[in-house]
Amino acid sequence: MSKGTVVLAYSGGLDTSCILVWLKEQGYDVVAYLANIGQSEDFEAAQKKAESLGAKKVFIEDLRAEFVEEFIWPSVQANAIYEDRYLLGTSIARPCIARRQVQIAKQEGAQYVSHGATGKGNDQIRFELTCYALYPEVKAPWSMDANLMHIRLFTNPDYKHFNRSINSNHAPSDLYLMTKNPDDSPNHPDVLEIEFNRGVPVRVTHLKDGRSEDTPLDIFSFLNEIGGKHGVGRIDIVENRFIGMKSRGIYETPGGTILYHAHLDIEAFTMDREVRRIKQGLGIKFSELIYNGFWYSPECEFVRHCISKSQENVEGKVQLSVFKGQVYILGRESPKSLYNEELVSMDVQGDYDPCDASGFIRVNAVRLREHCRLQGDLKK
Amino acid sequence: MSKGTVVLAYSGGLDTSCILVWLKEQGYDVVAYLANIGQSEDFEAAQKKAESLGAKKVFIEDLRAEFVEEFIWPSVQANAIYEDRYLLGTSIARPCIARRQVQIAKQEGAQYVSHGATGKGNDQIRFELTCYALYPEVKAPWSMDANLMHIRLFTNPDYKHFNRSINSNHAPSDLYLMTKNPDDSPNHPDVLEIEFNRGVPVRVTHLKDGRSEDTPLDIFSFLNEIGGKHGVGRIDIVENRFIGMKSRGIYETPGGTILYHAHLDIEAFTMDREVRRIKQGLGIKFSELIYNGFWYSPECEFVRHCISKSQENVEGKVQLSVFKGQVYILGRESPKSLYNEELVSMDVQGDYDPCDASGFIRVNAVRLREHCRLQGDLKK
Amino acid sequence: MSKGTVVLAYSGGLDTSCILVWLKEQGYDVVAYLANIGQSEDFEAAQKKAESLGAKKVFIEDLRAEFVEEFIWPSVQANAIYEDRYLLGTSIARPCIARRQVQIAKQEGAQYVSHGATGKGNDQIRFELTCYALYPEVKAPWSMDANLMHIRLFTNPDYKHFNRSINSNHAPSDLYLMTKNPDDSPNHPDVLEIEFNRGVPVRVTHLKDGRSEDTPLDIFSFLNEIGGKHGVGRIDIVENRFIGMKSRGIYETPGGTILYHAHLDIEAFTMDREVRRIKQGLGIKFSELIYNGFWYSPECEFVRHCISKSQENVEGKVQLSVFKGQVYILGRESPKSLYNEELVSMDVQGDYDPCDASGFIRVNAVRLREHCRLQGDLKK
Amino acid sequence: MSKGTVVLAYSGGLDTSCILVWLKEQGYDVVAYLANIGQSEDFEAAQKKAESLGAKKVFIEDLRAEFVEEFIWPSVQANAIYEDRYLLGTSIARPCIARRQVQIAKQEGAQYVSHGATGKGNDQIRFELTCYALYPEVKAPWSMDANLMHIRLFTNPDYKHFNRSINSNHAPSDLYLMTKNPDDSPNHPDVLEIEFNRGVPVRVTHLKDGRSEDTPLDIFSFLNEIGGKHGVGRIDIVENRFIGMKSRGIYETPGGTILYHAHLDIEAFTMDREVRRIKQGLGIKFSELIYNGFWYSPECEFVRHCISKSQENVEGKVQLSVFKGQVYILGRESPKSLYNEELVSMDVQGDYDPCDASGFIRVNAVRLREHCRLQGDLKK
Repeated sequence: MSKGTVVLAYSGGLDTSCILVWLKEQGYDVVAYLANIGQSEDFEAAQKKAESLGAKKVFIEDLRAEFVEEFIWPSVQANAIYEDRYLLGTSIARPCIARRQVQIAKQEGAQYVSHGATGKGNDQIRFELTCYALYPEVKAPWSMDANLMHIRLFTNPDYKHFNRSINSNHAPSDLYLMTKNPDDSPNHPDVLEIEFNRGVPVRVTHLKDGRSEDTPLDIFSFLNEIGGKHGVGRIDIVENRFIGMKSRGIYETPGGTILYHAHLDIEAFTMDREVRRIKQGLGIKFSELIYNGFWYSPECEFVRHCISKSQENVEGKVQLSVFKGQVYILGRESPKSLYNEELVSMDVQGDYDPCDASGFIRVNAVRLREHCRLQGDLKK
Repeated sequence: MSKGTVVLAYSGGLDTSCILVWLKEQGYDVVAYLANIGQSEDFEAAQKKAESLGAKKVFIEDLRAEFVEEFIWPSVQANAIYEDRYLLGTSIARPCIARRQVQIAKQEGAQYVSHGATGKGNDQIRFELTCYALYPEVKAPWSMDANLMHIRLFTNPDYKHFNRSINSNHAPSDLYLMTKNPDDSPNHPDVLEIEFNRGVPVRVTHLKDGRSEDTPLDIFSFLNEIGGKHGVGRIDIVENRFIGMKSRGIYETPGGTILYHAHLDIEAFTMDREVRRIKQGLGIKFSELIYNGFWYSPECEFVRHCISKSQENVEGKVQLSVFKGQVYILGRESPKSLYNEELVSMDVQGDYDPCDASGFIRVNAVRLREHCRLQGDLKK
Repeated sequence: MSKGTVVLAYSGGLDTSCILVWLKEQGYDVVAYLANIGQSEDFEAAQKKAESLGAKKVFIEDLRAEFVEEFIWPSVQANAIYEDRYLLGTSIARPCIARRQVQIAKQEGAQYVSHGATGKGNDQIRFELTCYALYPEVKAPWSMDANLMHIRLFTNPDYKHFNRSINSNHAPSDLYLMTKNPDDSPNHPDVLEIEFNRGVPVRVTHLKDGRSEDTPLDIFSFLNEIGGKHGVGRIDIVENRFIGMKSRGIYETPGGTILYHAHLDIEAFTMDREVRRIKQGLGIKFSELIYNGFWYSPECEFVRHCISKSQENVEGKVQLSVFKGQVYILGRESPKSLYNEELVSMDVQGDYDPCDASGFIRVNAVRLREHCRLQGDLKK
Repeated sequence: MSKGTVVLAYSGGLDTSCILVWLKEQGYDVVAYLANIGQSEDFEAAQKKAESLGAKKVFIEDLRAEFVEEFIWPSVQANAIYEDRYLLGTSIARPCIARRQVQIAKQEGAQYVSHGATGKGNDQIRFELTCYALYPEVKAPWSMDANLMHIRLFTNPDYKHFNRSINSNHAPSDLYLMTKNPDDSPNHPDVLEIEFNRGVPVRVTHLKDGRSEDTPLDIFSFLNEIGGKHGVGRIDIVENRFIGMKSRGIYETPGGTILYHAHLDIEAFTMDREVRRIKQGLGIKFSELIYNGFWYSPECEFVRHCISKSQENVEGKVQLSVFKGQVYILGRESPKSLYNEELVSMDVQGDYDPCDASGFIRVNAVRLREHCRLQGDLKK
């Protein structure tokens, strides 16, 4: 008799294949689920493999559009970046994948979900927190089987090669899949214009060849293509995992890096200084929440709402050049610009009286002078 | 009879020459003061000019070493960056320059200080707040004379060319003084190793040619040279001035950009996650204070102290490559690393029990499940 | 010929009467405007006085309901408190009063507004910032006339008696207008139940005598009455003005103090911990903005929106007792409570596995043990 | 053969007596440890009981002085308060108690520690995090024995009576041990003067009867006595536990409440506004850390250091009255006051030019007017 049904996030790789078999052996019915979030993978072959290993059912789900619109776009609005460097690409994939998995579990009457993200990492947390948040009664079995663990690690070049040798080894350039080595990238830049509305890109145009994209998925894919061609968005960092360890992370985020710079720029152009300051703090909080797996949490919903509110006037076009691993902002324009040429100009006095600046400075100095006075008094 | 003595921050340029003459005409004795903070300038010629225009005395002060040690180094420790992009180079020069000016004023018995930073900018504020903070009784006269203003602006390419044309004009590449155009920069990277102690660089070594520098000024100059050669640290941004206007800023910070990346990296390697999080908030505060001219303020002293405290274990070496406008971190090592290879490794279980992660996740999910439960209850 | 029309915020007192006369003498037409925000004042007499002094027109505006609903209620939602102690009563009155003044100025075609809040205080700032924010072209003339100033100060007991003698004098008990001295207050408490919806009170009931109020103005007036009767909400503090001085403030906020405690309680009962933490930070920001006069600013609008969003589930009833200057929370109930009796109970294990706590603790300790390990290593 | 030695935090009560017996039965040698942090308890009787139950050794440790100096005083400096209401009394006792327990364990060669704080509470976390932080190799066994749990709960009035009945029952007044019911408290206030140095109390004087205390323990005990006599510091709250549940807490903190108000006051009088603002944020962080059990953590050490630094000038005397559950600040004085009577006075112009305020306001309004301009433009 079956112990119940498990929906397994299946990758087609060795790890999750082993888990599939192990779950069957334990007496579970297994529904395999493959999420397409844009990775290059032979989904048909994976489906066949899952079936041949005994999956009762196989779901292959194209989540690319919803991943871009519902997960990447809010991160762009937030200028989400973890510990000043990591653009959180994999972190936001987990809740997207797990959400669908929960939907399938509910639909198939499965009481269990499973995944291959075992061990000491963040992905287990992101996966399981999402499942608990969306389906509180669910359980998540996973194996402690030593063999299985070993196989997994042995085949995982990321951990094998990099975490071990953090002090001595530099990352080999053939590690990267999406980005060219800047050494080998073109000797001429591509110049793009990205148009934003409410803080999300609505169109990208290649200013030379005129190619233009305007659906979220096409925009993001195009930016990945251009960024990848020029080697944009590679980082090699030490990061702090939620479980309190430091680990080395090597990431490539070509399209996300372009969007990060472009969005920062249009936001600075259209958003009030003090709103920006408050929103910056919310964006840092948002980044920590995403990294730690709390996409589906009351606080993350709250922060997303607030950040989204801040983006109402973040609208306009940014021109930028992509070249040798770098993104250069060239200019920007917006119908909602708060940049006032006349106000800032040195040869138009306009409404601004230089005497006001003196008063402004002297009032700001009241505190400083008092502090100085006290220091002087104390020395007497 | 003299109205009193003014110490004028003199640049040798047209603006401050006009101010010098105007102050003399108004009846002041003028002491001209030129600060050398590393800019390329003919100080001897400037001295002669000041004398010929009637300066009673001329001080030429080499502040380069103290600028690096007392102003740049604390900014490196703080990862100081204004509005996520601007590394604050000019902002930290003002308090350094004004501090010496106040010292000269006190020494010369001058009741007045003056400067050329008139108008709508941040520099007037930074200059005057510093003076008030260090010499509360001082006064700072400056001219509203329309002609003078006009001359100044007419000769200031920065404002003339860039603020006006923010939406349409891209910055011409000959604007930059310290950095090569990345297009024309070398086709091979330079690889450096920077050694830090207590969060400040104590040595830089060129890993190929073996050149090594170990005084603050030499280290910073060398990094400026290498960064400049590879076109590192150019930005074209819209920023929010303290007086509430948005303005366009075009900056180049070659050495500072290299240090920013290197310091972020060694800090992530040696600093506890939660200390880092608190310190990040202090660094953002510090950056705003510097930008707004509050280097000499009780809160900035407090924040500097706290940040400095956080750097006690920020020690070690970072290897990096500089190429085509980009800084790539290659690796790092430290006697105070908090990276624990064994702990993070997937094939050593060590002290870490995977069951703990499940408990950790389930306890973190308590809140999320309650939230979900309430949402469900409310829908009934 | 008239210099133009001024709308003067007129109080009927000596100061603003002098300003009215002075403005007439300067050649302005003066429209007098009296705002009723609940202070006890003879508005009819004030109107006659303004007319007799030459006001072209007199507006007496009852702003009590909008003051409670649009200004006090959002402050209650925010738990707004400045520097941990001051509940901001007068601070939120200014934007309410100035907003109507701007409306009258626009309606009457007045280019000028004026007020009696001269000098070194916060109220001038709150008043003028509101006017500039809502009517950017407006001007605000006020007199520097020494006599006028002197008269004003001479008649202002608040400043006269208290700011001078901050170190030695205790506030005399007859200073307070709204609250009884706790010494003389009743020897038996009043017990109230306040019902909240979306974070604002919608009903208050006296649990003994059954009196119940349910409009914002009536609720707030009743709470002022009960709080006043029991001497609730008196404070004697030193606060930091926006212009950088410390000043002494003596305030009484009977109804606001009751609402502060009641709202804190119902919020804690219904709001997720982490949402609360983020919202607490926004509330502190909100309080500073209000204090400094930025009610009408993009950042304050943004923060108000976010805080209001956080209040969606802040609903339920709080029972409290008011006695001898103190508010005691007795209990609370809510249909949206996140308090789960079964979950927290010690004799129901339910869904919560004590082993999870051990895992949770051990994972939280990973960082701490690493820190300890490093400290030990460094000592070797 | 012994499984090893356990140091048990023993209270003399039923729970820890059961644990002692259970540990013996499991084969451990048990060292009983009783910490005296000021609770009223018959330590001699407890010692005898532990011995009679088979403890190999019994330590009775008087931690009162170090508890006040090393744990309470830093909390006073921080104005530590959790979720705006709870003064953290029990939270700071745990690390104090556990620290000595670890010292005893090391000295006695014990590999294990144990305690009675089982279940769903914060105290288990505070206890165990402290032990792991100070003695990473230690283990902490505790029982899941259902009987034991049941007994514990049955005899624990706190949980029994209050957590169950949160919505309907008001706390009975005989629950409180340290504070009189304000109803029954004296009809005349006691007036105290507390002197601070570097943010901690160094003397308390009863202004009428002249009694004066000047050691930390005596000061705190005296304040507990006076506060208790007048019913100060009772709260009945719902709080958010670290493990994500809401629970009801009923606390009494008489001396701590007096110190909280007095310290807030002297701090406001002597600390720069902006330093205070930054320090307020650190204090909130500190409170969360303490509540969650992270007293011994790198971030808490860092924050304590920063807060302590902020207190350098927090010096002076506060006069206050304690009456019917309330603390009223009457006045304050300090050699390091930043309150400047002349500066703030309305009839001394002194150094402050009212025109400066107008400039200050107009510059602050630049942003607001731009925002208004944009809103207007957008509506066209």
